[in-house]
Amino acid sequence: MTVYLVGAGPGDPELITVRGLELIRRAEVVVFDRLVASELVDESAPDTLRIARDPMSQEQISDLLVAYGRAGLEVVRLKGGDPFIFGRGGEEVQALIEASVEFEVIPGVSVLNAGPAAAGIPLTHRGVSSQVVAAAGHSTDLDFEYLACAKGTLVIFMALANLAAITAGLIEHGLDPDTPAAVVSHATTPAQESVVSSLRNIAEAAASLSPPALVIVGSTVALATPGDQATLRTNVLAL
Amino acid sequence: MTVYLVGAGPGDPELITVRGLELIRRAEVVVFDRLVASELVDESAPDTLRIARDPMSQEQISDLLVAYGRAGLEVVRLKGGDPFIFGRGGEEVQALIEASVEFEVIPGVSVLNAGPAAAGIPLTHRGVSSQVVAAAGHSTDLDFEYLACAKGTLVIFMALANLAAITAGLIEHGLDPDTPAAVVSHATTPAQESVVSSLRNIAEAAASLSPPALVIVGSTVALATPGDQATLRTNVLAL
Repeated sequence: MTVYLVGAGPGDPELITVRGLELIRRAEVVVFDRLVASELVDESAPDTLRIARDPMSQEQISDLLVAYGRAGLEVVRLKGGDPFIFGRGGEEVQALIEASVEFEVIPGVSVLNAGPAAAGIPLTHRGVSSQVVAAAGHSTDLDFEYLACAKGTLVIFMALANLAAITAGLIEHGLDPDTPAAVVSHATTPAQESVVSSLRNIAEAAASLSPPALVIVGSTVALATPGDQATLRTNVLAL
Repeated sequence: MTVYLVGAGPGDPELITVRGLELIRRAEVVVFDRLVASELVDESAPDTLRIARDPMSQEQISDLLVAYGRAGLEVVRLKGGDPFIFGRGGEEVQALIEASVEFEVIPGVSVLNAGPAAAGIPLTHRGVSSQVVAAAGHSTDLDFEYLACAKGTLVIFMALANLAAITAGLIEHGLDPDTPAAVVSHATTPAQESVVSSLRNIAEAAASLSPPALVIVGSTVALATPGDQATLRTNVLAL
């Protein structure tokens, strides 16, 4: 009778943790995010109650977790990536604490590292980057002044819709327009696409990509090792 | 005949990915870091060549991976956490590319998120932090000016030995000495210990902890939800 907040990983169902998969298999209730691989939800037992999180508000979700937790059920709250990196896991945890419902957090592989890795980009690299800055780009209300002087690799989540405004903001605040930049969408899934360009041109280069997507800016992007994506290869050459 | 760079996860062997474990089980050679759980190495087949990375230089490791890769063996290079976050995976990848040896990177759960999670600390939290900055603290040559004005959560890897100098540097560059700060050592293992204090007092509070350890600084630390660590509970109250 515990609520488990489980990170489902970045997309590829095989990138969930061993412990996370084990918990899904024995869960009585699974509450899952839209972006979680359906293969993972399907790993739950046939009589497991499977609830899509999508139509509900954050408050409704928290209420639901508390209710099932109090009812003494084994609940898995399956969240895309990691529960605590732009996953709003903290809000659900607070609701569980306030309700005195026992819980456990099982971290997951975040797209923060899996996204760049899938495009062959190391977040840190000796002599190139010893710092990583991660920010959310679902609004254009970013701390551009701070982000523009980030040494190391800058990773922006949920930035595709606002990419032109975000790159303009970074350039305006002093980030070199020639800084290498990449976008990786649907990372680690069969639908993965990635483009590598410069900060100046990345919004245009990524125009055909669809969310979810990660934007990566910094010298480590130039180390990108093209995998089997022709797109990536082409765009590296066009840098 | 591929070299797999596999993230072993933060410490708890069950926090490796399903794919990572599968690759270990069918590997012919496993080259593992000192901090990788021995349970994971033991998952390899009895006749697997198991090589400890510890006594070798980075160049020797790269040479070894190239040699075994060229010999046509299935090689797993098992790295603590994630290969591309302070994991020097990029250097090994470059050596493999130069030698035209096929490789694949399997990301892992980084201690960047698992460490804070194990201490009940979300890296991002609505209204509190929408940014994460990760840096390496194995030298005191940090970009204090930049890090001191980090909005959001600051996470410093390998900072325990230099913690007093690092906190002094951050305070000197304007970070409020009362900012909540935590240290988590041996995260997600039975030896895990964590303390929560203020930036001013964290070096003293963490004096008895041993590496590997992660330092976390920012308002999200105040959200720490004590788990079963009495240390953490005590220190939260003493904040």
